[in-house]
Amino acid sequence: MNTLDLTPNRFVAGIEPLPKELHDKIERRERLLGASYRLMYHTPIEAVRGQGCTLIDNAGRTYLDFYNNVTSLGHCHPEVVSAIQRQVETLATNTRYLSETALDFAEKLLGEFHADLDRIMFTCTGSEANDLAMRIAFKHTGATGVIVSEHSYHGTTHLISSCSPNLGAAVQRYSHLETVPVPQTALGFEQSVAQALARFESRKIKPAALLIDTAFTSDGVFPGMPGMLDAGIDLFRSQGGLYIADEVQPGFARTGDTMWGFARHFSVPDLVTLGKPMGNGYPIAALVSRRELLDAFGSSARYFNTFGGNNVAIAAADAVLRVIREHELLARCSTAGTKLRSAIEAAVSPDWPQTELRQQGLMAALEFIPTQDGLNERLFANRVVNAMRHRGVLISTTGKLDNCLKIRPPLIISDTEIEKFADALNISVRDCLNDRSQNDG
Amino acid sequence: MNTLDLTPNRFVAGIEPLPKELHDKIERRERLLGASYRLMYHTPIEAVRGQGCTLIDNAGRTYLDFYNNVTSLGHCHPEVVSAIQRQVETLATNTRYLSETALDFAEKLLGEFHADLDRIMFTCTGSEANDLAMRIAFKHTGATGVIVSEHSYHGTTHLISSCSPNLGAAVQRYSHLETVPVPQTALGFEQSVAQALARFESRKIKPAALLIDTAFTSDGVFPGMPGMLDAGIDLFRSQGGLYIADEVQPGFARTGDTMWGFARHFSVPDLVTLGKPMGNGYPIAALVSRRELLDAFGSSARYFNTFGGNNVAIAAADAVLRVIREHELLARCSTAGTKLRSAIEAAVSPDWPQTELRQQGLMAALEFIPTQDGLNERLFANRVVNAMRHRGVLISTTGKLDNCLKIRPPLIISDTEIEKFADALNISVRDCLNDRSQNDG
Repeated sequence: MNTLDLTPNRFVAGIEPLPKELHDKIERRERLLGASYRLMYHTPIEAVRGQGCTLIDNAGRTYLDFYNNVTSLGHCHPEVVSAIQRQVETLATNTRYLSETALDFAEKLLGEFHADLDRIMFTCTGSEANDLAMRIAFKHTGATGVIVSEHSYHGTTHLISSCSPNLGAAVQRYSHLETVPVPQTALGFEQSVAQALARFESRKIKPAALLIDTAFTSDGVFPGMPGMLDAGIDLFRSQGGLYIADEVQPGFARTGDTMWGFARHFSVPDLVTLGKPMGNGYPIAALVSRRELLDAFGSSARYFNTFGGNNVAIAAADAVLRVIREHELLARCSTAGTKLRSAIEAAVSPDWPQTELRQQGLMAALEFIPTQDGLNERLFANRVVNAMRHRGVLISTTGKLDNCLKIRPPLIISDTEIEKFADALNISVRDCLNDRSQNDG
Repeated sequence: MNTLDLTPNRFVAGIEPLPKELHDKIERRERLLGASYRLMYHTPIEAVRGQGCTLIDNAGRTYLDFYNNVTSLGHCHPEVVSAIQRQVETLATNTRYLSETALDFAEKLLGEFHADLDRIMFTCTGSEANDLAMRIAFKHTGATGVIVSEHSYHGTTHLISSCSPNLGAAVQRYSHLETVPVPQTALGFEQSVAQALARFESRKIKPAALLIDTAFTSDGVFPGMPGMLDAGIDLFRSQGGLYIADEVQPGFARTGDTMWGFARHFSVPDLVTLGKPMGNGYPIAALVSRRELLDAFGSSARYFNTFGGNNVAIAAADAVLRVIREHELLARCSTAGTKLRSAIEAAVSPDWPQTELRQQGLMAALEFIPTQDGLNERLFANRVVNAMRHRGVLISTTGKLDNCLKIRPPLIISDTEIEKFADALNISVRDCLNDRSQNDG
């Protein structure tokens, strides 16, 4: 086995032979961009156009896009595009000027939350929103202890990357961080939180924030049972900490049934962070909370985000929210999610390696269950993703062992496209199994 | 004296009587947005349209905009607008797909730097760029000590806000932070750095980053003499630290003569951060550095910024750079800056309180020199800003005591507009002096 093959779904030279032109472009890229940049797929894609559920490359080849959760309404959604086009030629300035449009949008968006979540702040990225949520939590609690799930990802800033175990050992952990495993049961989660709190106590650390993506997206998509998180959250709060729901990935109808991932549980978060699909590609993110929390922070600390809540960002986000509501994408996401589940279940064949399907709305992970250390399954998931890419269907991998297929089509996906995806999955896995048996033979 | 009057240029209820409609909108705003939000001017402006150097409010009133340094090419610059409009209907996805346009832009932008600054990373905001620069500096040096100027502002994240003394006592300082006063001479700066390094040493802290806005914009605009910073920078580097030039405010031709503020000195920064005017209002920012620094960070740490370097951001930034070059705005900024200086000097009258004018390109501060504790001058600067606003000319205040007028017109400002601004300044100060003498009488 080539160790290069063990790299999660990203380009590494030498795995697949590249056309000279593509090879040269990648070399040029490496000469210009910082080394942190990764390209997806063993043969990367040069995307030049996007339309609905389709991404189009420089050779005119089309890809069925089951991966981009930012352009959640589909690439270049006409209503969002025209909202941006109109606003960008009218005004693009900041929140130090009054804007009735921004207030109208704030009111509309807050209408999607429980009544006591009554205040909003705009940022540009989910990372900024999470970073700000933590600043507010530190200020409010006067405490420093943070709990996240074992393989979660919450963003890129110094603080937030250090609270994102997903980034691995290369990124130093926040010194007052404790992790909990992905919960399977309500009791299990409550016990994990209790243990993390006990570890805080033994280190004389007081709890500040339980920062949770309630769909456990980057842990490998583990939405779990509704209500499963409540006892653990209650326990955490009883010791003075705040519950921050990171809705950057699950939010805006992605999980079906409810607009926000946290709404599958009873607990109302103290702080909610929004991002990725909020502007269908335009950089806008936000934080929603209660008056008293933001008053305590804001009455003393200035916070001005130059681009956060600018007129164009608001126009984009307003169009997104309108489209979700007017086209009833929440209900559609739920129906389509059920269709996605049954299509994947039908695609899975008895001669495949053992799998587990986890799905909530239009967010799904198909895990190849580890037999030993998971390396074989990681390799296999990686191969399937790349085989599908060559068949013109885009997904990627996720999970602690990177042994899960990560599947998240746009909310506007049709039943026909879901079937097309499931067919490609079935054929790609079969091809990969054939390759494997030939290599073994 | 009303203590409310001492608040820096922001809206505080009661200073000026408001029309009922405006009053109600502000109340609504306070019911929807977090308490950190500030509005500029005692009678806030509801901006609804922008065109070139003009901002237009909901009543159709026009304002000559001498303050917005983000829309540095003027509001809604037609070339930037059409670049965004074209791209937003074509594709808006992320850097995990190849994009030749992004590489072309990266090459063009890197061409504006010294040859050894040869790698770029894209973020959405200047805060993110500064935060990333610090992560890289910490990683590279294995050290933690940071030096900034006494009243500097570098951004909003947990780390960067704690390295921004400008935010005041409400924001906790980074524990390994030392500050230096705004330098007046090369020797003075070298000595301040030496003293800060000595304080590090006594605390057993090793130096990681000297984070400097070389125009000392938020300290009150102190561009100083060319070459003035070099000895201090050399000293800092000789002890293993890195020099980060924060070009978020001075960059992209704002200071005239040179494209970047740091280029007025000999030292080539280890890391450069860009932001605000980079996309003329579109959220894009960046970090420029050397290969070895980014390799050390990026080979181990993943860093993916969802919206950073997306196709629309690149299109906007590419248009901005093209306009600056094709319209020779660097040279124009220099000429216009000289014109601005002489116009302000001509506007200043002998019966004014004593002033100091600091100007570099189209960034200027007119300080009302403190006689005692500076409170009177702060109040006066504040009044002048609001008087000018009522005369339809927009500026704000800056400086440690908030006793400076902060003046930064778009790079496309005309001589006629500069004269119009200077006239408004002259009349507004005279009016404020008359008001004062009447109040005293």
